[in-house]
Amino acid sequence: MAAVSRGDGARQRMLAAALEVLDESGLAGFTMEAVARRAGASKATLYRRWPTTGALLIDAMDATFRPFPVPETGKVESDVAAILNAFVQLMEHTPFPRLLAAFIDAAERDPALSRLHADLTGRRRDPLLAVLERARERGELPEDTDPELTTDLLTSPFFYRRFVAHRPIPPTMVDEVVSRVLAR
Amino acid sequence: MAAVSRGDGARQRMLAAALEVLDESGLAGFTMEAVARRAGASKATLYRRWPTTGALLIDAMDATFRPFPVPETGKVESDVAAILNAFVQLMEHTPFPRLLAAFIDAAERDPALSRLHADLTGRRRDPLLAVLERARERGELPEDTDPELTTDLLTSPFFYRRFVAHRPIPPTMVDEVVSRVLAR
Repeated sequence: MAAVSRGDGARQRMLAAALEVLDESGLAGFTMEAVARRAGASKATLYRRWPTTGALLIDAMDATFRPFPVPETGKVESDVAAILNAFVQLMEHTPFPRLLAAFIDAAERDPALSRLHADLTGRRRDPLLAVLERARERGELPEDTDPELTTDLLTSPFFYRRFVAHRPIPPTMVDEVVSRVLAR
Repeated sequence: MAAVSRGDGARQRMLAAALEVLDESGLAGFTMEAVARRAGASKATLYRRWPTTGALLIDAMDATFRPFPVPETGKVESDVAAILNAFVQLMEHTPFPRLLAAFIDAAERDPALSRLHADLTGRRRDPLLAVLERARERGELPEDTDPELTTDLLTSPFFYRRFVAHRPIPPTMVDEVVSRVLAR
């Protein structure tokens, strides 16, 4: 593990302050000034690292909610379930969905933020894509499986449940989705 | 078709004004006063019909974006595709997704709005549920098909694509999702 330098510590503090401000005030209250005040740093320091509030936001989300590691359980269904269960934890027990909801709204009005959020989503999809590609290579999934569409089908019901249906995610849901989508 | 009474016309005008205010100002600017001004009505008139801004919002969404009629093409795949294609039109060519994004964010902070939005989503799911139930009764789908989960799997990829992945919905996507989810 790399040693954390003094600069890294300051960066982490600013990123944590950014998420706190976003969580408390929403995007309407998310300004460089508010983050600087919370982090005990100057606005100039923040602007040196992040030219826009959008860039700061994405870095803060990225640093705090790391993509999940690629599991290796030996079976595609349980690999996928491991990733989805970690994702459900994130949705049920962290500020992540509240922050994401603020993004969803803001991205509709701000194309730059929309692109940044698209990149963030892309990075978060990688572990699931890796698991599905590997399963296809091993012959666990049909040769013509589309990993991108399969990733959409596996993850989107959990976003929908939280943000559109506003219903709790039942403990059986991960297994039900996996068995429907990966039916073989 | 029932004749539209004078009262109905006034109601429609207020609901249209509500959506315009929401679309232009977001939820932060959505007040009874702003809607009254836009509709040329008094705040008291609005409050007589809708006790809260949340109730007004939901009625406005409900009245403007009606649930789709239940199609009857004779085949479950094309019935489902008809509903999903109408939904994609709504997502690609109307203010609906921008309004929905504002709801998604606000519902995270307001449990009453979250319940209202859940009801609205429930009503919008009905046509797809009806098509799937009918197909199960006719033996087009397996007896143990869960219509609720199937509705989640069929609709959620389109929300995800717009709000989380921020990518356009390709013309082939409806058919791909239908054939993956209803594979038989």
